[in-house]
Amino acid sequence: MNGAESLVRTLKLGGIDVCFTNPGTSEMHFMAALDRTDALRCVLGLQENVVTGMADGYARMADKPAATLLHLGPGLANGLSNLHNASKAGTGIVNIVGDHATYHLEYNAPLTSDIEGIARPVSDWVRTSPVSEGIAADGAEAIRQANTHPGRIATLILPGDTAWNEGAEPVPAPKPNAPAAPSADKIEGAVKALSSGKPTGIFLKGPTLREPGLTLAGKIAARTGARLYAPTSNARIDRGAGRIAVERVPYVVELAVERLSDLEHMIGIGDAEPVAFFAYPNKPSRILPDGCNVQHLATEEEDGTRALEMLVDALDAHNETPPVAERREPELPAGELTQDTIAAAVSNLLPENAIVVDESVSSGRQLNWQTAGALPHSWLSICGGAIGIGLPLAAGAGIASPDRKIVGLQADGSAMYTVQTLWTMARENIDATIVIYANRAYRILQGEMTAMGVREPGRVAKDMFGLDRPDLDWVSIAKGMGVEGEKVEETESFIDAFQRGLATDGPYVVEAVI
Amino acid sequence: MNGAESLVRTLKLGGIDVCFTNPGTSEMHFMAALDRTDALRCVLGLQENVVTGMADGYARMADKPAATLLHLGPGLANGLSNLHNASKAGTGIVNIVGDHATYHLEYNAPLTSDIEGIARPVSDWVRTSPVSEGIAADGAEAIRQANTHPGRIATLILPGDTAWNEGAEPVPAPKPNAPAAPSADKIEGAVKALSSGKPTGIFLKGPTLREPGLTLAGKIAARTGARLYAPTSNARIDRGAGRIAVERVPYVVELAVERLSDLEHMIGIGDAEPVAFFAYPNKPSRILPDGCNVQHLATEEEDGTRALEMLVDALDAHNETPPVAERREPELPAGELTQDTIAAAVSNLLPENAIVVDESVSSGRQLNWQTAGALPHSWLSICGGAIGIGLPLAAGAGIASPDRKIVGLQADGSAMYTVQTLWTMARENIDATIVIYANRAYRILQGEMTAMGVREPGRVAKDMFGLDRPDLDWVSIAKGMGVEGEKVEETESFIDAFQRGLATDGPYVVEAVI
Repeated sequence: MNGAESLVRTLKLGGIDVCFTNPGTSEMHFMAALDRTDALRCVLGLQENVVTGMADGYARMADKPAATLLHLGPGLANGLSNLHNASKAGTGIVNIVGDHATYHLEYNAPLTSDIEGIARPVSDWVRTSPVSEGIAADGAEAIRQANTHPGRIATLILPGDTAWNEGAEPVPAPKPNAPAAPSADKIEGAVKALSSGKPTGIFLKGPTLREPGLTLAGKIAARTGARLYAPTSNARIDRGAGRIAVERVPYVVELAVERLSDLEHMIGIGDAEPVAFFAYPNKPSRILPDGCNVQHLATEEEDGTRALEMLVDALDAHNETPPVAERREPELPAGELTQDTIAAAVSNLLPENAIVVDESVSSGRQLNWQTAGALPHSWLSICGGAIGIGLPLAAGAGIASPDRKIVGLQADGSAMYTVQTLWTMARENIDATIVIYANRAYRILQGEMTAMGVREPGRVAKDMFGLDRPDLDWVSIAKGMGVEGEKVEETESFIDAFQRGLATDGPYVVEAVI
Repeated sequence: MNGAESLVRTLKLGGIDVCFTNPGTSEMHFMAALDRTDALRCVLGLQENVVTGMADGYARMADKPAATLLHLGPGLANGLSNLHNASKAGTGIVNIVGDHATYHLEYNAPLTSDIEGIARPVSDWVRTSPVSEGIAADGAEAIRQANTHPGRIATLILPGDTAWNEGAEPVPAPKPNAPAAPSADKIEGAVKALSSGKPTGIFLKGPTLREPGLTLAGKIAARTGARLYAPTSNARIDRGAGRIAVERVPYVVELAVERLSDLEHMIGIGDAEPVAFFAYPNKPSRILPDGCNVQHLATEEEDGTRALEMLVDALDAHNETPPVAERREPELPAGELTQDTIAAAVSNLLPENAIVVDESVSSGRQLNWQTAGALPHSWLSICGGAIGIGLPLAAGAGIASPDRKIVGLQADGSAMYTVQTLWTMARENIDATIVIYANRAYRILQGEMTAMGVREPGRVAKDMFGLDRPDLDWVSIAKGMGVEGEKVEETESFIDAFQRGLATDGPYVVEAVI
């Protein structure tokens, strides 16, 4: 078998089942190997940021990496910003990037580029396979890297001749290093803080925002009165009625500072502490009050869940019954369509076990508490601030979890970034209801300009923040890519449209004009 | 004035008039400075590959660089593949990329990334301005870099505090180094080849594909019988009836080899020789016959036009009258709509002085000779092979040349890559008629798979090459972004639709189903 086939078989052997792709000429032998082996499900995206964002959404729900197949440097470059998001989310992905045959590079043909250089800023591991006999082993190592806790971006570059020359047998992926448990003295320090009687927070991150981490954290909270926090944006929180509630730190610096203002101890599970999303003149970068003692119980590479277990042990908190979020079913709202009536309707109508993909940006600032009492669901956010992840994340989650309803809460400006995803949703019949908050603006920037100390946007800025002139017509855009939808301008019709979306087995767009 | 304003004023002082952008929070002080000074025309793109592609199209027609304003690493990353294209085209661009305030970087907020690392693979020059007093001088140097022959990508990173702290006065951009003239012995070598009586080609590149380079090359050809060639893809060729004709080397390797098979000398103006776009098993990377003597009269950094002048002098060819392309007005075709009937109709109807933006890919393989006798026009191609440049190039060319009609000849798969451009076309009322070759496939890949030695695409490959299931509905997509259009399925209706587009003062999409 040639190198390409040895790589495809290695991927399959290593537990990879799905390949998100937009292939080109240099990937033809890989495509042929996919044809021969039928080993992976292939999903086409019409631009590579759709491809990489889908791989992220898939891994967040499937709990294992997908592969992407990308066309040389430019194909990788097009997918770079959602790889940035995936990297910040701690998602594992195996990128396969085709390149020219090694002997062709010296001719500097149009598509020649520094692929390793493009890959490096968003990859934890990059390798170019120079010979076909080595590609299977390199692929196995890429899988090991991607599976390393909490998840890594591994980029393997496959020159044409490495693909088409004779390869070795497929190679089983080596076991990733298990995440280290935290040291006993860290546990001791945390116990001391939690027993101090002073206001103490636990800052959860990554996989601890799901079971069994949540229940462990809940027991610690029940035992000690600690408050549970999470970053503003997270790869996945399992939440809603019946689950341990965690407060996400608000985006707006002043609000965040206020919410955490009395904390004297913060125990980090993951190596970060709450920080401002941006720097602003005369505003702090750190959110915690001066003098708050910060300890990190586990870095992101360490086993945060194990750390919580050890803490439960040390606190003898196994028999605690942590309080859980209650079901709150806000009355169905009516009248003018606003962010708040949308939130109330979504919270009321969200189906059990839904996957919410939140790229609502400024329109969703209150969604965290507004949906806290919805039926249990998973909540996926944009983790790296690179807008344009919502639609691909929804599509990828749908590939991983075909039996769960996806609800996309989607800002209009961000949706445009990867609007091509709608076509993949139609093709793959992704069961997603996408609510477009059509405020006809990069509304967030109007607030940010004030936050930056500039009083009012002038003519130029208003023009650059506006998505009006012309208004985007989401129903036509969706129709153009094979997705049904409707536009609504008041709350009752939003509720009807949202319910029609939920009742549809496949993608449905609700353009909510607010 | 603050750093941002000193930079905006420096850009204006340095001859920059237009800023293509999608700004974010870290660029707010730059936006405010644009508001205060009203120095630059700002054009919004709804995704950054639209932004950078427009800057490329603008510079190719305006003969000077535009600025882009991009939002941190991800904003730059989104625009990277059209910067790759621009770099291969020899286009000058000044990228301004916002970053977090310098003191904020240590907190590793979500948008923190290695911006210099992302910029480097597509930039000739990268600098981060650490202090506000230095940003004007750095901006002036960026302009100098962008203006350096034939055009460079300069990327200047502007941390938030560099923008908002007090800056220096604006700085006039230093003069770029003039391109060097070739040495006399190179001229001598070329004269020898051209006087040898053996089949000799001149391989023109870059600015020599416009006046006065074309006429100079034509005189040499008239004097010596040399044949004039150009790469398959070029930043801009001025061509059509009444102009010196240059043969572009075909994309398909076998055809290219055949066309050049009898050459014994090739004189390169620009440091390249004809090479295959991709490597294929058992096909050559070099196109020229073995034993063909290749000389480079001028590298791309040198003054190719001056080299041609020196050659005309040495050959005493000033009084030659080079033959020019004749006007050919093919009869208006009828019947089944095909690539060929579209080409004939376009060649017949193309308005004088039009700008043709060609991203027709496999649908336009014959366009070169099919349109050789059209009224005089400029022809812009995709130079780096990163698809998704056509629509942005058309929009940017329209900003630079509002009095010239733009005709986009556009493959459907490539158009989807930067489909968001249609909205900017509507907003800026770009006078462009866009023909979408709707073959519902990445048709090129079906041929490439065969060329790669794989006989037939199987089920998986066919699926990944197909843009059907569902078909894209370009009229709805365009309407959704405020652009009029129509779908046609036979030649007569194509001609009507194309003429309606030409008669429209603004963007118009013709979905040509072939």
